[in-house]
Amino acid sequence: MSPDRYVPVALSARHAHLSQEHVEALFGPGHRLTPLFDLSQPGQFAAAETIEVVGPKRSIPGVRVLGPARGRSQLELAATDGVALGVNLPVRVSGTIEGSPGAHLIGPRGAVRLSEGCIVAARHLHATPRDAERLGVADRQKVYARVPGPRGLIFDEIVVRVSDDFRTELHLDTDEGNAAGIGKGDSVEIVSSLCDDLCRLEGCPIAPAVSPGVGRPFCSFTSDKVSIR
Amino acid sequence: MSPDRYVPVALSARHAHLSQEHVEALFGPGHRLTPLFDLSQPGQFAAAETIEVVGPKRSIPGVRVLGPARGRSQLELAATDGVALGVNLPVRVSGTIEGSPGAHLIGPRGAVRLSEGCIVAARHLHATPRDAERLGVADRQKVYARVPGPRGLIFDEIVVRVSDDFRTELHLDTDEGNAAGIGKGDSVEIVSSLCDDLCRLEGCPIAPAVSPGVGRPFCSFTSDKVSIR
Repeated sequence: MSPDRYVPVALSARHAHLSQEHVEALFGPGHRLTPLFDLSQPGQFAAAETIEVVGPKRSIPGVRVLGPARGRSQLELAATDGVALGVNLPVRVSGTIEGSPGAHLIGPRGAVRLSEGCIVAARHLHATPRDAERLGVADRQKVYARVPGPRGLIFDEIVVRVSDDFRTELHLDTDEGNAAGIGKGDSVEIVSSLCDDLCRLEGCPIAPAVSPGVGRPFCSFTSDKVSIR
Repeated sequence: MSPDRYVPVALSARHAHLSQEHVEALFGPGHRLTPLFDLSQPGQFAAAETIEVVGPKRSIPGVRVLGPARGRSQLELAATDGVALGVNLPVRVSGTIEGSPGAHLIGPRGAVRLSEGCIVAARHLHATPRDAERLGVADRQKVYARVPGPRGLIFDEIVVRVSDDFRTELHLDTDEGNAAGIGKGDSVEIVSSLCDDLCRLEGCPIAPAVSPGVGRPFCSFTSDKVSIR
């Protein structure tokens, strides 16, 4: 496979984004988040602050807060965490928390009852415009990512987001990283069409007609609705 | 896709298999495991007994013991559990524990220092001979399993095991189930060759020449070593 289709993986462990109001409720009036180290996406940082997240079944202590503070509080958790907390977490694009489960948050100076905001972040690819061109992908299209090795698998349903503000990375959560046996520093192959990109059959009558990113499951010609003779 | 390629999923949560010697060390002399409920594989049961597993970083309480007792003790954990315990778990076929990390096990009547035996069980497909024929797969071959939906993915590296003693099921751990958004009662599609089984292109010059289960990444003709013109 050609090396120029590879991108690094960023694994997101469970974390909290907090509104400034909730920062002050949990850590005290006038409190500002303390940057601990920079994250790979420009401007984002892991804060020194952690909170305890309490669900109906169990609680999870030491959940890292990320900064800067946002408009609305949101907890990005792994589905495994949902089992521990006792809530059924929906898979959502970051920022779309309507109707998601809430939780109680406990900080050193107070507690907050969050009525909604607990989600599993949908897997997605951040790409700079330059890398998007290199990878042959466009903003908002869906792609695959192929992971080799003894726990090899092919992630489907990866939404591409292109912006000059991004660093190019595939964002997965810890469940996904653990299921695929990959971690920080690993790279995976981005595949926009299994048929077109992976087969690359010069003699195949299908591949030349496949538009990147369309055609599911693998290309529009191989679905049950279309018969090729 | 044709429905006769579907198999049910069995998700294994973390559990312990114990030798009779260790059952007695943890639960008292002469103790026998108490069946709590039958598991899907014939003869296997979840026991009423649970143990605490202690790693160098943290411990995990309430780990379910499965019965009957085996020749050697073995802990089948999720990679997520390995992070919590502070050990790097290898992916292994059940029973092959040589060189794997150990742990301390604590029961109500004693403790055991396990020198090795902590693994992540490699994903595998159990099939009856009849279902293997239906699925078009053979003992020890590797297959894919395709999961649809918002967390859709294609599991690679699934080893097929065929026996009259099995119930047909795809065995995954909780990390894998959570990464794919599937649980007990769901079914997935078994695919022995992405090229041959999924494309099914009548006009494709490749598919008829592909032997099921061979040819990786997708078929032997699409690897970098072979050029098709």
